[in-house]
Amino acid sequence: MKPFSDNSIIRSWRKNVQPWVSAIRKGEIDSRVQVTNQTIVDSILNLAPETVLDIGCGEGWLVREVAKVGIDVLGVDAVPELIEYARKKGGGRFDVIAYENLSADVLKEKFDLAVCNFSLLGHESVTQLFQKIPFLLNHKGIFIIQTLHPVAGCGEGKYEDGWREGSWAGFSHAFQDPAPWYFRTIESWKNLFLTNDFNLIEILEPLDQQTNRPASIIFIGKVAGSLSN
Amino acid sequence: MKPFSDNSIIRSWRKNVQPWVSAIRKGEIDSRVQVTNQTIVDSILNLAPETVLDIGCGEGWLVREVAKVGIDVLGVDAVPELIEYARKKGGGRFDVIAYENLSADVLKEKFDLAVCNFSLLGHESVTQLFQKIPFLLNHKGIFIIQTLHPVAGCGEGKYEDGWREGSWAGFSHAFQDPAPWYFRTIESWKNLFLTNDFNLIEILEPLDQQTNRPASIIFIGKVAGSLSN
Repeated sequence: MKPFSDNSIIRSWRKNVQPWVSAIRKGEIDSRVQVTNQTIVDSILNLAPETVLDIGCGEGWLVREVAKVGIDVLGVDAVPELIEYARKKGGGRFDVIAYENLSADVLKEKFDLAVCNFSLLGHESVTQLFQKIPFLLNHKGIFIIQTLHPVAGCGEGKYEDGWREGSWAGFSHAFQDPAPWYFRTIESWKNLFLTNDFNLIEILEPLDQQTNRPASIIFIGKVAGSLSN
Repeated sequence: MKPFSDNSIIRSWRKNVQPWVSAIRKGEIDSRVQVTNQTIVDSILNLAPETVLDIGCGEGWLVREVAKVGIDVLGVDAVPELIEYARKKGGGRFDVIAYENLSADVLKEKFDLAVCNFSLLGHESVTQLFQKIPFLLNHKGIFIIQTLHPVAGCGEGKYEDGWREGSWAGFSHAFQDPAPWYFRTIESWKNLFLTNDFNLIEILEPLDQQTNRPASIIFIGKVAGSLSN
C-alpha cells in the first residue's frame, strides 16, 4: 500500500482517536485555542446560516459551538470512534459518513453552509468531495474551509501540490503514526472552488501572535448557481 | 520627510530610470525573463480585451507586447523620463500621469482591462488607485495585478501589512537608493478588490523553477457592477 494515500490518513486518525479527543477537549493545541477556533466560529456565525454541515467534525467541538446559538448542525466523520465521542457529549447531530459516501441522497437534507475545519488533508478524496458539495447546499449555499496556510505549511519543499510527510511535533507523546497530508497552493485551492461552481468570496489569514505567521488560511466560497442555469 | 512613504517610491524610480530601462531591455532580471513576463502577457491575452490600460508601465515593454496582437493599449507612468523612453521606442500609446491624477476625465476613454505589473508598491497611493479603477473600466471590466508573492516577499517580518526596506539585491551596481515597499497579505489584496466592487475571479502563482518558490502572485478581478445597480 502506498505510504502517501488518502487511506493512510484515515488509518492514522483511527489510531489517534483518544489522544486527539483529549487534545481538543483539554485545549492542548495552542494555535487552535488562541486563534483558529474562534476564527472559524466567527466566520460561520457572520454568515448567519440556519443549517450547517460540519464535514470531518471529529469529536464535535465545532458542531457544539455553532449549535449553541440555535443553528441546526449535523457533524459527519469517517471515523466511527470519533462520532461515538461526539454523540456521548451531545450538543448536535452526528453521523458516521465517509467523504466518498456523502451525497444528498444519503443525507436526505440540504444545508445553508458546509464547513471543513482542518479536515481536507487528502488528495483525490478532497477533489471528489469538492464536486459533491454544491449538491449538498441550498441555493447560494456557502462552503468554508480552514486549512494550513501555504506560508507556514510549505516549508522548504517545492511550492506545488503534493504529498508531505506528517508530523505530531508539538503534540503529546500519545500520538503515533502521523498521517501524510497533501499540500495545495493557494492557486489550487482557488481552482477547486472555481471549477466546482463556487465564487470565492472571502480569504482570511488569521495571525498567530506568537509566531507572527498566519495560523491558517480560510477560504469562503458561494455557489454561483451556473450549473443549474 | 518620512523614509517610508509613497513619495519615496517615485523619488527612487526617478533616480534609477537608466539602469531600469537597461535591465528590462537587456533581460537582466531572471525571474521576469523566465516566468513573470510571459505569465502577465498570457493572463491579459486569455481575457481577449480590445482595450488595455497599463498603469505604471515604465519603459513600456508590456504595452508593446500586448499591442503586438492588435489590442489598443495605453501605458501611463508617473515618471516622465520612463515615458520618454517608451515613446521613443513606440509600439503603443504612452502618457505621463501620476496615480493620483488618473481619472476617467483625464483619460477621456474607458478600457476593457487595466493591469498593474509590479507597479503597486505603495500604501495610500494603492488604496486610492483601487477606488478609481472601476470608473476607468467598461462594463464587467477586468483589473489584473502582478505583485510579489507573500511567501517569497514576507521574509522574516511579521505577516501583516506594512512598509518594508527596499533592496536592489541581484541588480546591477548602477542602481541606487532602493525604494521601500508596502507589504500586503493575501487577505489584504483580496479586500482591496472586494471593497472596490470587484469579484476576485483568479489567483495565479507562477513557479520559479530555479528556487521552487512562487515568482509572483497574480490577482484578477472583474467589476461586479453593484455600484451602478
